[in-house]
Amino acid sequence: MKLAQRFLVRGNICYMATSSAKSSTEDHYRQRATYAYFLPIQTRWQDNDQYGHVNNAVYYSYFDTIINHFLIRYCGLDTNTLTSSMVGFMVTTRCSFHGPIKFPQNPLGALGVEKIGRSSVHYRLALFLPKPHQKPAGLHHNTLIDGCFLDSPVLEMFERVACATGLSTHVFVTPTTKTPISLPDDFKRCLQKLQ
Amino acid sequence: MKLAQRFLVRGNICYMATSSAKSSTEDHYRQRATYAYFLPIQTRWQDNDQYGHVNNAVYYSYFDTIINHFLIRYCGLDTNTLTSSMVGFMVTTRCSFHGPIKFPQNPLGALGVEKIGRSSVHYRLALFLPKPHQKPAGLHHNTLIDGCFLDSPVLEMFERVACATGLSTHVFVTPTTKTPISLPDDFKRCLQKLQ
Amino acid sequence: MKLAQRFLVRGNICYMATSSAKSSTEDHYRQRATYAYFLPIQTRWQDNDQYGHVNNAVYYSYFDTIINHFLIRYCGLDTNTLTSSMVGFMVTTRCSFHGPIKFPQNPLGALGVEKIGRSSVHYRLALFLPKPHQKPAGLHHNTLIDGCFLDSPVLEMFERVACATGLSTHVFVTPTTKTPISLPDDFKRCLQKLQ
Amino acid sequence: MKLAQRFLVRGNICYMATSSAKSSTEDHYRQRATYAYFLPIQTRWQDNDQYGHVNNAVYYSYFDTIINHFLIRYCGLDTNTLTSSMVGFMVTTRCSFHGPIKFPQNPLGALGVEKIGRSSVHYRLALFLPKPHQKPAGLHHNTLIDGCFLDSPVLEMFERVACATGLSTHVFVTPTTKTPISLPDDFKRCLQKLQ
Repeated sequence: MKLAQRFLVRGNICYMATSSAKSSTEDHYRQRATYAYFLPIQTRWQDNDQYGHVNNAVYYSYFDTIINHFLIRYCGLDTNTLTSSMVGFMVTTRCSFHGPIKFPQNPLGALGVEKIGRSSVHYRLALFLPKPHQKPAGLHHNTLIDGCFLDSPVLEMFERVACATGLSTHVFVTPTTKTPISLPDDFKRCLQKLQ
Repeated sequence: MKLAQRFLVRGNICYMATSSAKSSTEDHYRQRATYAYFLPIQTRWQDNDQYGHVNNAVYYSYFDTIINHFLIRYCGLDTNTLTSSMVGFMVTTRCSFHGPIKFPQNPLGALGVEKIGRSSVHYRLALFLPKPHQKPAGLHHNTLIDGCFLDSPVLEMFERVACATGLSTHVFVTPTTKTPISLPDDFKRCLQKLQ
Repeated sequence: MKLAQRFLVRGNICYMATSSAKSSTEDHYRQRATYAYFLPIQTRWQDNDQYGHVNNAVYYSYFDTIINHFLIRYCGLDTNTLTSSMVGFMVTTRCSFHGPIKFPQNPLGALGVEKIGRSSVHYRLALFLPKPHQKPAGLHHNTLIDGCFLDSPVLEMFERVACATGLSTHVFVTPTTKTPISLPDDFKRCLQKLQ
Repeated sequence: MKLAQRFLVRGNICYMATSSAKSSTEDHYRQRATYAYFLPIQTRWQDNDQYGHVNNAVYYSYFDTIINHFLIRYCGLDTNTLTSSMVGFMVTTRCSFHGPIKFPQNPLGALGVEKIGRSSVHYRLALFLPKPHQKPAGLHHNTLIDGCFLDSPVLEMFERVACATGLSTHVFVTPTTKTPISLPDDFKRCLQKLQ
C-alpha cells in the first residue's frame, strides 16, 4: 500500500499538476463514498498471472463488466448489435493499482459518473478488497443480479479504501454509421443517479 | 437445445460406442443430481464473443475456477509456487455445449469427482442457466465464498438440466521436478465427498 | 512428455475402447503430417497462469483463432453478424496436453478437417513447440497473414510431434433463427482441401 | 479517427492542462518515430467483443506482452518466481483509443521508455494498424521472436500514425518482501536504448 502510494506520488504523470494535489485527488477517489453503484466481482483462476496476482489487464474487464451491468440492468441498454440503436466505444481508460488482488478473493466493484456529455459518459471506477477475517454477512438480495447501492449492508464486508481506481470514457455511436449520437434523455437521467 | 442434442448424437465421436448409449450417458451428465459441489459463476462483458455468446474457451476458465475454488477452500490446496508441495496440471479437458450462455446471465457451476487415481483426479463439470423470470431468492450464505452443496436452496434459482457439461483430468506433480506425486490421504478424503 | 502419455493411457476415458488403440490413435494425431494448414501462434504474458505455463483454457482460444483464420482467409467466411448468412457455433471441443507451453515461446498451430457433415465440420487441431536452439529461419512469406501449408520451410522451425492435440465441432446456423444450414458447396470444397 | 480525436480533446481529463497542448502531445505520441522497439501482435478470435472490435481490456494484454517480450529477450529479465531476483508490478496503466482493431488484423506494437527511476520504469506504448491493400513484405528476420527496431523494413507494412497509445509504469520489487529494489545497472542500460 505504502509502496504504490509513494510511486503514485513520484511517478504517475497523469493525474494533477502538483504532487500534493494529485495525492489528495487520488485519496478522494479511493473512498467508498465517492461511488454510487456496487457489484461484487468474482475472480477466476486464470486472472492470476505468473506472479500470483490478478493481471493488470484483467482489472479493465472487471470495470467493463460493472459499467455494462449497470447500463443493461438499470438504463435499458440493448447490446444486441442486430437491434440496438446505439453502441458504446471506449475512447480512454486508465487504472491506478494500490495493492494486489489474488484469486480466490472477490473484491467489490464500484461505479460513479464523473461527467455526462452530449454523446459521452465519463465513469469513475474502483475495487475494494474484502475485509480479512470477515464473517461472511448474509446477502439478502441477489447482488450478483441487481448490484447494490450505497445504503446496502453488503458494503460492510469490504474495505472502505480502494485497492484500485480507474477512469473510462464511453462514446455512444450509431451501430451502422459509427457517428456519435445525442444520448437519450431517459438514459441520461439514469446515469445522473450515479453523479 | 434440440439442435445441439441432434448434433451430439450424430457428430460427436467422443463419448460412447453407440449413439443411444452416448446419448443416455450425456443425459445423465446433464442432471443436477450428478454433481455434489456448486458455485455461481459471474459472467463478464468480455466473455461474449462477436456472435454475442460466451466464447467456448471461456467455459474452461469457469471450470478451472470451480475446481480450484473447491480445492483451495475445502481441500487446503496451496497454490503459491514458493510454498506449495504439489501443483495440478491438466492433461485432458473437454466440453459439450447444449445451449448458449450470454453475459449478463450468471450460470451455476457444478463439480463432481469421477475417479481418483494415485496422482490424478478426474472431474465432471457442468453449467446450469438461471431459470427465466425467476424472482431472485435470498442468498443466506455467501455462496461466492463458500460455494454450496446439493441441499442448498440456492440451486432452485437454476435449471435442473445443464446447458454445458465437461470433463477434465488433473495430474498432481512436485513443483520442482514435475514428477507425479501420491495424493495425500486427507486430500483424497476431501475429494471423495464429491464422488 | 512421458508423464502425460502415461496418464492419457490410464486415465483418459475419451478416445478409444482399448488402451493400445487409444495410444496409437493419439500418436497419429500428434504427427505433423496429419495436418494440412499451419499458423504460428504468438503467446502473451497473460497466457501464463500462476504455475508459469499457458493456462489450459487459453489453448482453446489458439484453436479458435486457427480455425477462424482459415475460414476467413481461405473460405470467405463473413463473421460480421450484420451481413453474414451463417455463423458457426462450437458444440464440442477437447484437448489433450502432452507438455507445457510457456510465454514467450511461440508454437505452431495446425489444422485438419476430420469430417464434413451437412451443417457441421469436425476439426483436428495441434500445437507444435519451436525447436530448441533453433536459428530462426527467414519467414519469406507473411505467415501471420497467410498461414502456411505442409510444404512450407517455416515448419522446419518446429518439432514434428505435437505438445497438444484437440478436436472441435462447428455447427453452422442462420444468424437470425439459429437453425442449422446446409453448408454451401464452395465452402465445403475449401474445407475438403484440409482432409 | 476524427471522432476519437474530438473526444480526446473535449473529454479526456488526463493528459494536459490545455486542449491544444494535450492534443499536440497526443499527436506526438501517435507518431512511429516516438518509439524504438516494435513487435507485431497477433490478434485472436476471442479478442473481438460483442461489438466486433478488439475489446479495450485486451489492448493492455498486448502492451504487457510487448514490455515483457523486450525485458526477457533483450534485458535478461527472469520471470520465474522461484529463481528471479526481481518482479515488476504495474502501478498505473492507461490507453487512448483512436480507432478500432478487428481480428484478424495484426497490428504492430511499439515501445518506448519515458523515464527510468530508482525502482520504476515508465513506458510509452502504441499500436499501428497494417496498411490496407498492402502486399505483404517478406519478413527476413523472425520478428515474432526478435521484435525489430526503427530501421526495420517490416515497419513499412504498417501505418505511421497509431490507432492507440498507452502509458504504463512498472515498479520492480523483491519477490519475497515486495519492497522496491534499485534497478541493476545493466538492466537500466538496456532500457536506456529505448529512450
